Amino acid sequence: MVAIPGVLERARLMVEPSLVAAVDQLQPELRLLARYHFGWAEVDGSPSRVGAGKGLRPALAVLSAEAVGADGGLAIPGATAVELIHNFSLVHDDIIDGDVERRHRPTVWSAFGVDDAVIAGDALHNLALQVLLADSTSPLTVERVQATVRLVAATTAMIAGQSSDMAFNNRSEVDLAACLAMEADKTGALLGYSASVGAVLAGAPQSWIDALQIYGLELGLAFQAVDDVLGIWGDPTVTGKAAGNDLRERKKSMPVALVLSGGGAAEDELRAIYDSVDDLSDDSVARVAAVIEAAGGRDRTVAEARLHLDAALAAIDCVGLVPEAVDELVGLAEFVANRDF
Amino acid sequence: MVAIPGVLERARLMVEPSLVAAVDQLQPELRLLARYHFGWAEVDGSPSRVGAGKGLRPALAVLSAEAVGADGGLAIPGATAVELIHNFSLVHDDIIDGDVERRHRPTVWSAFGVDDAVIAGDALHNLALQVLLADSTSPLTVERVQATVRLVAATTAMIAGQSSDMAFNNRSEVDLAACLAMEADKTGALLGYSASVGAVLAGAPQSWIDALQIYGLELGLAFQAVDDVLGIWGDPTVTGKAAGNDLRERKKSMPVALVLSGGGAAEDELRAIYDSVDDLSDDSVARVAAVIEAAGGRDRTVAEARLHLDAALAAIDCVGLVPEAVDELVGLAEFVANRDF
Repeated sequence: MVAIPGVLERARLMVEPSLVAAVDQLQPELRLLARYHFGWAEVDGSPSRVGAGKGLRPALAVLSAEAVGADGGLAIPGATAVELIHNFSLVHDDIIDGDVERRHRPTVWSAFGVDDAVIAGDALHNLALQVLLADSTSPLTVERVQATVRLVAATTAMIAGQSSDMAFNNRSEVDLAACLAMEADKTGALLGYSASVGAVLAGAPQSWIDALQIYGLELGLAFQAVDDVLGIWGDPTVTGKAAGNDLRERKKSMPVALVLSGGGAAEDELRAIYDSVDDLSDDSVARVAAVIEAAGGRDRTVAEARLHLDAALAAIDCVGLVPEAVDELVGLAEFVANRDF
Repeated sequence: MVAIPGVLERARLMVEPSLVAAVDQLQPELRLLARYHFGWAEVDGSPSRVGAGKGLRPALAVLSAEAVGADGGLAIPGATAVELIHNFSLVHDDIIDGDVERRHRPTVWSAFGVDDAVIAGDALHNLALQVLLADSTSPLTVERVQATVRLVAATTAMIAGQSSDMAFNNRSEVDLAACLAMEADKTGALLGYSASVGAVLAGAPQSWIDALQIYGLELGLAFQAVDDVLGIWGDPTVTGKAAGNDLRERKKSMPVALVLSGGGAAEDELRAIYDSVDDLSDDSVARVAAVIEAAGGRDRTVAEARLHLDAALAAIDCVGLVPEAVDELVGLAEFVANRDF
């Protein structure tokens, strides 16, 4: 277990006031839904401090400004916007995936209903753009417009990735390459954005922006590979999700795709179970997990995580970025790739 | 019955290629959902020509460029973007309202499921911004950025209005003022945007932009008042919605709000029916409609439509806009306020 990098808390303290202020601009009903989702309020509106997510994206954004020699505070509008987009996607993905719990409490749709979750996600999506384009405290700069254009592009990719992921349910042939392409869109694009938006807002040279974006994209793939392992073998008391959740939902995540495209008896057995229409019992879930593990699906996904982690680190190595910030980016990447939650 | 204004077809021919091209940029699964929604494809992807909506927003956008002496073609990116936002809201609102039919065919959620409708709406929402910010055929201009900032603001209002509308279900006190405020957000903001975006893209003086926006906002309120009348008394074979649809869903639309805040026996009777938990029979729906009509809810809503139509026309009268375009804007407004569909 790697220690939690200090930058997560440091960035949270920098960005959360801006995030709270953005959410406060929402109309009262939408504000409650958003505050509940972020873990700042209970269903009845009373204060809550259950805590939001890890804040990986804001931390990347802040470091990406510092990496080009700028003040981390310059990244705040980008960090706020990307956190809003990420959370819009969580609220809608929870509907789509039918997930009833997130961060150890009911998801927005399961607490308030699907209708409220649809409109809450829409509001967060739009609020992200508003934060970048209509910040009343400062004039709209060329850099801010650039950051907006890039956010829209990253969000387009994220939505396309989520749609591809959904389409995997109806496709029998899903291999590692298809999985990686989908996850580059679904997770990589927004992390690539996060890891470069501070540099964009600071007006840094394109080569630095590109290096940081590649770092983020590769980190996203490593992140997702780890996530896919945890989605099958993670400890429910740590992940906050049911054991074998991804298998129960018959997700074609990386470990599954590796076995489904790997041939042999393991592929046949896995395919038979995935093609059946019955709900999977706890025993079946355990059995599927064992089949995938025995066929190497787990080890190869862990290796894939390592590969993309290395690519992430290589992207920002020796390109002239501020060493202290690079050290923190490295630490953050190691943390993400070795986490157990 | 007013004749269909020629500008609707003229603007459709100008804007539809851009709309089709925008939707073509979507990933295949999302593209099918969008093409189905627009009436260009059937569920299986085969071509369809059932026809999209009236195209009121694109027509307003084109006229708003012409009204300031510019070529209507200048408005195309704005017209495309606003049509995408409008249709994103339709796809999500149909989920929220549980509406199974739109334009005489199943809504996206009822044809493809709620999950697909959620992601399809998200994709259209984001695509609208992409159209304005990332048009590969021309560089990003100050006017285009301005049009984007305004679109985000209008969309914020639209989402807030939809959320207020949903909240009305749990509020017993809804009067005309609350209704108008909600509808100014839900419908007015986007029509105000539509009716001014061509002028914005043409770099017109602010006073003309403001006049056109007020015209659109007021037209939106007139439109919504007419919509509320049709939602209760419209002919199902013409509107494409079930008779008394709004009453069945216990919507607190303008005619209902007028009676609910009007006192007397009519308020008591309407409140008793709206507060009951049973599904309304066809007889009950007819009875409620009669109570509202007898209490003046219908006539006063029609009068409200006229009031806002007049305000719309006054906003663009004698302010120096191109007379031919103003004539078309007047014709379009008269058409909207007198329609029976």
